[in-house]
Amino acid sequence: MEQQALHALLRDVANGKKSIDEATQALKTNQFADLGFAKVDLSRDSRNGYPEVIYGEGKTAAQIIGIIETMRSNTVNILCTRISSEKYAVIKTAEPDAIYYKEARCVLVNRATVPQTDSYIAVVTAGTSDIPVAEEAAVTAEAYGNQVKRVYDVGVAGIHRLFAKLDIIRSAKVVIVIAGMEGALASVVGGLIDKPLIAVPTSIGYGTNFNGITALLTMLNSCASGITVVNVDNGFGAAYSASMINHL
Amino acid sequence: MEQQALHALLRDVANGKKSIDEATQALKTNQFADLGFAKVDLSRDSRNGYPEVIYGEGKTAAQIIGIIETMRSNTVNILCTRISSEKYAVIKTAEPDAIYYKEARCVLVNRATVPQTDSYIAVVTAGTSDIPVAEEAAVTAEAYGNQVKRVYDVGVAGIHRLFAKLDIIRSAKVVIVIAGMEGALASVVGGLIDKPLIAVPTSIGYGTNFNGITALLTMLNSCASGITVVNVDNGFGAAYSASMINHL
Amino acid sequence: MEQQALHALLRDVANGKKSIDEATQALKTNQFADLGFAKVDLSRDSRNGYPEVIYGEGKTAAQIIGIIETMRSNTVNILCTRISSEKYAVIKTAEPDAIYYKEARCVLVNRATVPQTDSYIAVVTAGTSDIPVAEEAAVTAEAYGNQVKRVYDVGVAGIHRLFAKLDIIRSAKVVIVIAGMEGALASVVGGLIDKPLIAVPTSIGYGTNFNGITALLTMLNSCASGITVVNVDNGFGAAYSASMINHL
Amino acid sequence: MEQQALHALLRDVANGKKSIDEATQALKTNQFADLGFAKVDLSRDSRNGYPEVIYGEGKTAAQIIGIIETMRSNTVNILCTRISSEKYAVIKTAEPDAIYYKEARCVLVNRATVPQTDSYIAVVTAGTSDIPVAEEAAVTAEAYGNQVKRVYDVGVAGIHRLFAKLDIIRSAKVVIVIAGMEGALASVVGGLIDKPLIAVPTSIGYGTNFNGITALLTMLNSCASGITVVNVDNGFGAAYSASMINHL
Amino acid sequence: MEQQALHALLRDVANGKKSIDEATQALKTNQFADLGFAKVDLSRDSRNGYPEVIYGEGKTAAQIIGIIETMRSNTVNILCTRISSEKYAVIKTAEPDAIYYKEARCVLVNRATVPQTDSYIAVVTAGTSDIPVAEEAAVTAEAYGNQVKRVYDVGVAGIHRLFAKLDIIRSAKVVIVIAGMEGALASVVGGLIDKPLIAVPTSIGYGTNFNGITALLTMLNSCASGITVVNVDNGFGAAYSASMINHL
Amino acid sequence: MEQQALHALLRDVANGKKSIDEATQALKTNQFADLGFAKVDLSRDSRNGYPEVIYGEGKTAAQIIGIIETMRSNTVNILCTRISSEKYAVIKTAEPDAIYYKEARCVLVNRATVPQTDSYIAVVTAGTSDIPVAEEAAVTAEAYGNQVKRVYDVGVAGIHRLFAKLDIIRSAKVVIVIAGMEGALASVVGGLIDKPLIAVPTSIGYGTNFNGITALLTMLNSCASGITVVNVDNGFGAAYSASMINHL
Amino acid sequence: MEQQALHALLRDVANGKKSIDEATQALKTNQFADLGFAKVDLSRDSRNGYPEVIYGEGKTAAQIIGIIETMRSNTVNILCTRISSEKYAVIKTAEPDAIYYKEARCVLVNRATVPQTDSYIAVVTAGTSDIPVAEEAAVTAEAYGNQVKRVYDVGVAGIHRLFAKLDIIRSAKVVIVIAGMEGALASVVGGLIDKPLIAVPTSIGYGTNFNGITALLTMLNSCASGITVVNVDNGFGAAYSASMINHL
Amino acid sequence: MEQQALHALLRDVANGKKSIDEATQALKTNQFADLGFAKVDLSRDSRNGYPEVIYGEGKTAAQIIGIIETMRSNTVNILCTRISSEKYAVIKTAEPDAIYYKEARCVLVNRATVPQTDSYIAVVTAGTSDIPVAEEAAVTAEAYGNQVKRVYDVGVAGIHRLFAKLDIIRSAKVVIVIAGMEGALASVVGGLIDKPLIAVPTSIGYGTNFNGITALLTMLNSCASGITVVNVDNGFGAAYSASMINHL
Repeated sequence: MEQQALHALLRDVANGKKSIDEATQALKTNQFADLGFAKVDLSRDSRNGYPEVIYGEGKTAAQIIGIIETMRSNTVNILCTRISSEKYAVIKTAEPDAIYYKEARCVLVNRATVPQTDSYIAVVTAGTSDIPVAEEAAVTAEAYGNQVKRVYDVGVAGIHRLFAKLDIIRSAKVVIVIAGMEGALASVVGGLIDKPLIAVPTSIGYGTNFNGITALLTMLNSCASGITVVNVDNGFGAAYSASMINHL
Repeated sequence: MEQQALHALLRDVANGKKSIDEATQALKTNQFADLGFAKVDLSRDSRNGYPEVIYGEGKTAAQIIGIIETMRSNTVNILCTRISSEKYAVIKTAEPDAIYYKEARCVLVNRATVPQTDSYIAVVTAGTSDIPVAEEAAVTAEAYGNQVKRVYDVGVAGIHRLFAKLDIIRSAKVVIVIAGMEGALASVVGGLIDKPLIAVPTSIGYGTNFNGITALLTMLNSCASGITVVNVDNGFGAAYSASMINHL
Repeated sequence: MEQQALHALLRDVANGKKSIDEATQALKTNQFADLGFAKVDLSRDSRNGYPEVIYGEGKTAAQIIGIIETMRSNTVNILCTRISSEKYAVIKTAEPDAIYYKEARCVLVNRATVPQTDSYIAVVTAGTSDIPVAEEAAVTAEAYGNQVKRVYDVGVAGIHRLFAKLDIIRSAKVVIVIAGMEGALASVVGGLIDKPLIAVPTSIGYGTNFNGITALLTMLNSCASGITVVNVDNGFGAAYSASMINHL
Repeated sequence: MEQQALHALLRDVANGKKSIDEATQALKTNQFADLGFAKVDLSRDSRNGYPEVIYGEGKTAAQIIGIIETMRSNTVNILCTRISSEKYAVIKTAEPDAIYYKEARCVLVNRATVPQTDSYIAVVTAGTSDIPVAEEAAVTAEAYGNQVKRVYDVGVAGIHRLFAKLDIIRSAKVVIVIAGMEGALASVVGGLIDKPLIAVPTSIGYGTNFNGITALLTMLNSCASGITVVNVDNGFGAAYSASMINHL
Repeated sequence: MEQQALHALLRDVANGKKSIDEATQALKTNQFADLGFAKVDLSRDSRNGYPEVIYGEGKTAAQIIGIIETMRSNTVNILCTRISSEKYAVIKTAEPDAIYYKEARCVLVNRATVPQTDSYIAVVTAGTSDIPVAEEAAVTAEAYGNQVKRVYDVGVAGIHRLFAKLDIIRSAKVVIVIAGMEGALASVVGGLIDKPLIAVPTSIGYGTNFNGITALLTMLNSCASGITVVNVDNGFGAAYSASMINHL
Repeated sequence: MEQQALHALLRDVANGKKSIDEATQALKTNQFADLGFAKVDLSRDSRNGYPEVIYGEGKTAAQIIGIIETMRSNTVNILCTRISSEKYAVIKTAEPDAIYYKEARCVLVNRATVPQTDSYIAVVTAGTSDIPVAEEAAVTAEAYGNQVKRVYDVGVAGIHRLFAKLDIIRSAKVVIVIAGMEGALASVVGGLIDKPLIAVPTSIGYGTNFNGITALLTMLNSCASGITVVNVDNGFGAAYSASMINHL
Repeated sequence: MEQQALHALLRDVANGKKSIDEATQALKTNQFADLGFAKVDLSRDSRNGYPEVIYGEGKTAAQIIGIIETMRSNTVNILCTRISSEKYAVIKTAEPDAIYYKEARCVLVNRATVPQTDSYIAVVTAGTSDIPVAEEAAVTAEAYGNQVKRVYDVGVAGIHRLFAKLDIIRSAKVVIVIAGMEGALASVVGGLIDKPLIAVPTSIGYGTNFNGITALLTMLNSCASGITVVNVDNGFGAAYSASMINHL
Repeated sequence: MEQQALHALLRDVANGKKSIDEATQALKTNQFADLGFAKVDLSRDSRNGYPEVIYGEGKTAAQIIGIIETMRSNTVNILCTRISSEKYAVIKTAEPDAIYYKEARCVLVNRATVPQTDSYIAVVTAGTSDIPVAEEAAVTAEAYGNQVKRVYDVGVAGIHRLFAKLDIIRSAKVVIVIAGMEGALASVVGGLIDKPLIAVPTSIGYGTNFNGITALLTMLNSCASGITVVNVDNGFGAAYSASMINHL
């Protein structure tokens, strides 16, 4: 509950508009819907600027549908991430307007056109295999009303490909760099731009790649400044932060 | 063998009620049943306050049935944990009174009503995906005669949900907090209550979550005091300790 | 702020005893003292049952003295842990009633006799080298009004030593087991008692001991039930939880 | 070299203003000063928006002085991080205008007043021991012309301290959260604000804290969205990114 | 090639019985059979006291059959370890005298009665789930002519079961202790016997057990002396060493 | 773009043969083909001496076919690594001249005879199970015009097998040693030869082998000099470097 | 307490020679001396075949002296390991017959000639830097009445040095191989002998040696059979086990 | 002993020039000097192409001097690595012609001019702090008769510095790239050259750099081909391999 709302509530108590018990109750329960297996956070939008997102991993299709139903009346572009195509098939029967972004493994429900930013987010990948994570980021960013430009497969093994696309990257308001293997692309891009860069390690690689940990460590230790990092394969998280920055 | 029993046994030898060979034997074999593949511990109840529990992972259904048969005559509420539904199907044919708690993956055999505590254990989870571990804890605690109150999906991303349930948590005699991802809920609850808190990390998460190790580390390093920790996904162990405390 | 206090505060607003601004303020600032470098938590006692404890590592003697001064008027037995003898020497000049427990590396200020429990906490170590951690636990427990019984150097390499002390251990209300090396003592004690056991791994050992991580892992994976674990060398934390349990 | 400059250079060649050899040379050498042991990057300001920063660790005082001299004529507020007081003493003799920020372990040379932002960066710490990292962040941000507000020691063990300062945090344009131990503060703040949050794990803690790795993992796995992370103790890096965002 | 053989070979050259080229060749090729995909070591028996053992993992059934054929004429009890039942089915068709030890996942071909030791090896497990590794050890030891006594499921959670079997364990010439979970049984047995103890960690457990690494660490850091350790699940290796010792 | 080409391009601009816009464009786009999901690096051959290699893992058959088509006109012996037999089946339908090396899991398309080196690369393995990695190396080296000699299954458990093949190994221009388990073969060979040795750890082993990490660590810490190392199972990478050296 | 002693004790109770209380007491206390900070195990010799050894790390000189005094009357060759020369200087003043083995960092008190074995233990090192660990092993073995032969600096980088000493190694009854760096010597020796081999990794090395962990892993994963392993730098433990075997 | 020498030795035996005992002896002892604490390998030069190098870490100055004396008569440019200035001071008194390379921490004794290669090795570093490792490489390479060109401080944060020096790097016969932090320079250089590249991670960095492990992992997982890797800070090893290649 925010400062203003608290103030207002207390004022209502002071002038008798609300009883004490009502106020106590209000301080506690009007901000989520309790489904038993989930307490859907209905105040996240006002608190964080974005509605709750449904993380699909480890939730049944039925649970996801339940949460969607709860949110539908006051949220557009309900975003579900990490949704397998099998789970989507079930969701689709209950939510006919659900749209599946296969490569991104995301579902959007109650889709609406939201105002789009003038500035854009550049989503850059080192390789072809990093594209699914990039698409999770791009779909998320677009759902939140951001323009997105995709620059895929410009890893440092052929660095001239990066230079050819540098104008697009440099003109973005915020840049997401997505890379597996050794993840060196983040450092190289970081050294060439003057905008915030969010780096996403991916689990692409083998052996000592350790499912993306090597790329993560590379990004955390970058000799270039201005780079912050999110969890392995967390395209959604990068886009969420990038969207916050792009809307400033 | 406990102090008193040892004393009694030696007295029997001293006054000739037991031969030396009998006593030597008694010191060694009357406390378990030897099935070859297993030595079922029949004195655990008197020694630890609880009968042996059957950990189902890595045991065949036939082995589990053998152990149940051995225990049945002197134990009620024989608890089997980590039982797949396939394994349960086989057990059920041999033990028709077996009851399956699907979400908890537990089986109870020879169920009986045990006296229930007045005080209760609060079982709290950060997310929906943590519920299976929470149910293992809740079913265990209930089998041991504890009242349980479930508070699910109150993670710190929407901390007002936690505050709304704080009364229930604060009134418990002991609290179990179950969380995956970064496991921060344990610290936050720990800072708000004056009762023992047992934290259970779950393997929910991805990437640098390392299958629950991150949540475990968070809980071990909590800046709040009064938190002790069990192994990843060990709902049973948390409930076992909580039950001991709740019965004090 | 607890439920009752909140209720009371709102009632004061409702009947005009407190203005809205006063109430808003009260909800926010009356519970800690802001020293700039520290915000001393003055409501921890009422919230957690114990006053804030001063963790000495990484704080200057001057900072510690500042916090003590803030707490002195409403707290007895102000406990400071992880205090080197050098740091103690400085504290002593400002706080002449400070008492140093050298082996435990703890300082008590404003010492007072608190009511003592009838039941006791057993503090058990595997070896001689584990004693400093044990003393941190014992001094903490005693400061919080617990009876403590020390059972030192009963590790499993000579398990008969443990059996000789088993009566003392079994009669405790809660047991703290402290061990370095491979930490097997926790499992063995856990299999022999029917009381809650809190295990503390210590950093005693070399090579693959990894400064206590091996003992920690042993304790987390114990085949005996009823064991919960705290961070390496965290004698304080074990005693804090044990005290909570012992006072139930 | 940027697109426009390349275009201009090629035009000069085309109309004979520059010879081919001159152009080849220009493409290669006019952007840094070669000191042998270091190649000072003189185009970083135009490329990244900020001049090169001197990372003091592993460089001798003489090397640092050499780099400062090279930069002095075209850079104000030359920032050196990770400078011990011993090293500072040597630098001071050669650079009398050097100013030392002791807690931050930073040195500023050729200090100038730069235009200050209206919006501010909130620098928040969980504990007193995290302050040195926070000061590295704050000094960096101020050198780059940002307003900074410090909110120290508001960790989750006493979460009401955080709520008391929430207004300051929520009104920032970007928030830096700095925490050691289990690092849970980042998740809690992240769940309460609608601005970009950069989390900095610190090496404060012991045992399984692993010198800050636990706090890092916590932050990477936060259940709250909108959090990006930098390396352990990297106050500078967080401030650099935050400054980029604050100047958007 | 052993010292004596070398001496003999050189003498043959000196007195003209062997040409120089023959000798050079002899020094190099008469000790293995080259199958292309494998070089079967035919001198291992004379060199190490035991013939080569066929490690089945990662070899095709056809490769295994090829190696058996090469060895058959001069080796009895050809031992193949880590053989799945599928692979055994194929081997059986080519080697009709192959015998499968299902629990041990071992195959013996060209079985013969070898002289048996008077002394015996005790194979001890902590739990029921450790039996497959124990059987690999027992089958190996028996193939090498050792008497074996099996003592299964005597883990420290019910330590009286161990004491009941202590006579059998103490009378062995060498003891193999096999345990998963926290592996504490090795330390406890090690503290009670005066014979060499070889400890085998198993991958039984979950979470922080790390597939047997925790049990391995426990065993390497045992506070009891006289314990040496082999790789996780390496029942064969333990039996091989134990057999060497038992035959001394 | 290489120095000479840059010089030439600028000369063309200077004497009017190329317009400025053409030159700018040439500097950026003529070196790769943009397929959207991939930017095929067409200048790698001139830049690195070898054309781009298609790493099959994580790419669909359709993507691989697209890249092959792009490369076919100016590349012979297009090498695809990490290709499953399922994926090969699809590729084969589109590229009828594709040849599958099953054990190596490699595909060659547009095969041509390239000039062969006089000197050869020795590819040495410790065991039979290491052969797939060895074949990836051998097939790669042969595709690049190197003579290869295979020496398989000469691990140190039967070191005389190695000595029998030492002449072949010592006469190579560069040696690749491939080993799993503990990887000791690299050190032993390294101590016996005077040529560059590239060591490849394989993921063969179990338990503390950690999927090849143990062999990798062994190789990195070899007491013999002259050994460099590549990633686990990276037969391709070793052959690539060896080919560079063999062609010097 | 051993089987026979237990039997005897019970017989004494049966025929009235011992009262029940006496017997209970006997079962518990006559086997160690309780010094408060230590419980000196006086029955270890009869139980394990060797008296308790004093591990010096983490004990004060005063504590060590106290333990020596307790043991002196019924133990010769009291062995103290991990004793710094500073600590030895203090011990020497109280125990004038203490002898210091500087390289081994061991102290022997109450030295006596014990019967020596005919067979011997070979102590083999890979390098010069491994000698301190080797001396700890050799001094221990000699104190326990074993003949020892030292073979130092025969690592695989110059494998002919090993072959020159192979006769000495092959004629031992048990072999201890001590190696740091990559630890490959254990595998090579293991492949050449037919006696039990105990491998000791040492912390000699740098970087990815990880203070001996790499050598440990090498030894645990040896492709040669018949190798068991002890903790890093644990020369004492290896000698203790080797002595047990050598005395069989 | 090499093939030819073996052949010759056997011929001498055949025609009576050498007795059998002499030959046996010759096969074993004429290739090293046994100093007790060290067996100096005198045949390494003929076997590996380079004389033994003295690794100074963990050896006393006296031991080093002893080895130098043994080698002096038949070796020039005796190289000692990892020598502290304190140890050098002692060596200098015994070996007046010893020359110390302070930054490289190397000592050369019995220095002689060796024939120099026409081709050269490029030694490239990412930062100023990597120079000590680079100098160890450069001094080693020069001692072995290689031309060396140093290119220091061209890390990817200012990638134009690298491009300015690319001609020097591309014209080398073999390239050594030395980098700490995230080690991305190896990948970038690897993508731009057609010569063998040996990557050396350094321990420069903090936090998740893990003393160079991050840079090592980056290099092992490079998306550029043709890169092999050595241990952290192993400048010597890289130069040794590079020298082998440069002399081909």
